[in-house]
Amino acid sequence: MAIKTLSAKAAAALDRELMSTGAFSIDQLMELAGLSVSQVVHRVHPLSKGPRVLVAVGPGNNGGDGLVAARHLRHYGYEPGIYYPKRPKNELYQRLTKQLEDLEVPFVDDFPAALQSADHVVDAIFGFSFSGEVREPFPAVINAMAEAKVPVTSVDVPSSWDVDEGPPKSGVGSNFHPDVLVSLTAPKPLVKHFKGRHFIGGRFVAPAIAKKYDFEVPPYQGIDQIVEVDRDGHKL
Amino acid sequence: MAIKTLSAKAAAALDRELMSTGAFSIDQLMELAGLSVSQVVHRVHPLSKGPRVLVAVGPGNNGGDGLVAARHLRHYGYEPGIYYPKRPKNELYQRLTKQLEDLEVPFVDDFPAALQSADHVVDAIFGFSFSGEVREPFPAVINAMAEAKVPVTSVDVPSSWDVDEGPPKSGVGSNFHPDVLVSLTAPKPLVKHFKGRHFIGGRFVAPAIAKKYDFEVPPYQGIDQIVEVDRDGHKL
Repeated sequence: MAIKTLSAKAAAALDRELMSTGAFSIDQLMELAGLSVSQVVHRVHPLSKGPRVLVAVGPGNNGGDGLVAARHLRHYGYEPGIYYPKRPKNELYQRLTKQLEDLEVPFVDDFPAALQSADHVVDAIFGFSFSGEVREPFPAVINAMAEAKVPVTSVDVPSSWDVDEGPPKSGVGSNFHPDVLVSLTAPKPLVKHFKGRHFIGGRFVAPAIAKKYDFEVPPYQGIDQIVEVDRDGHKL
Repeated sequence: MAIKTLSAKAAAALDRELMSTGAFSIDQLMELAGLSVSQVVHRVHPLSKGPRVLVAVGPGNNGGDGLVAARHLRHYGYEPGIYYPKRPKNELYQRLTKQLEDLEVPFVDDFPAALQSADHVVDAIFGFSFSGEVREPFPAVINAMAEAKVPVTSVDVPSSWDVDEGPPKSGVGSNFHPDVLVSLTAPKPLVKHFKGRHFIGGRFVAPAIAKKYDFEVPPYQGIDQIVEVDRDGHKL
């Protein structure tokens, strides 16, 4: 049985529903989503493999998940660095940034240079609302991640990929294949084109809501906020 | 070396600081605090010991932590029930309540009756801002917890205890000795009088802030949001 997926349109509708009738605040959801991402990084890249995690942060909610993940990674003992070139005025992102500054997490300006001394990369640039062209300054960042010698973990969507169709046929991102993907709440259709280790995170969806959107609550174990799944969505 | 503690006054100041200069929202802090409580319950009372966790919820933030913990416990597979007799109009608590309703978590009116069929109890009635007398309807609830045949886990403060002085000398709560305590951010002075299993949770305090308030960031391990400590504050 093929894994059930949430289209870009359905993912946007689910997000709206969680924050309206579902009564979640974006702070809550982003905290749990970012926590999931940090748990995946800890699973695939334990501290013994090197503490330096470079987090590429985009201008929207996917970037916010990355900021939260970086904070938790710092608490776990990692040494994250943040590349955050486009910072919206939004108060939430400003607060998440301040929380990192208080932990003395450095913000870097030159992504390719920072990549040289990173042990792992988190791609939190674009999420399920991305479509169209990759805007500056991100083409060079995605090219650098595509050619990185260290593993890359993408948050929800490999940045530049079409949420429903997968990697672009040509141009920026056509050669970007991250090693790890953390699907949030449910996988998106692009997973058909993804070959790496696949986790699902974001353990906050009620079974009734999952049913309405035609997916299953993933087979999380114990207190885990994440679960690694195979191509059919079964627990590994 | 004795464990470092945060007085009621210092705990209130730290809370204010986290939400002002620390840039945290109450939604974030409560989510992480409640998550810590759920992890403690899972540690001391794994599902195999029985799924029915009765959560006694007070009218303030301690109660909010209990509501969040109950939601996570539900996701872990427990069957929580909520006793929540005094519900403030505050929008946050209404949202946390709705999130539980969407998971079909039952709310009960009769605490002693519900206790008869519970496997574990979470005391989330009063926290670090409690002082003075226990108001109705909570005296009977605290008496019932004091005599419960199943283990009780208290959130931050055993309800009815003075935050700085410990259990009352007489009256309601003088015979209440919970089995487990989850101190949030740092232990309060009452821990000197506590004999059960002691955990610290709430993994969000920056080292600089802890230093300012004269405590150490607890020795959390890996991705754990909690750590069990001995009477000197060392990891068990």
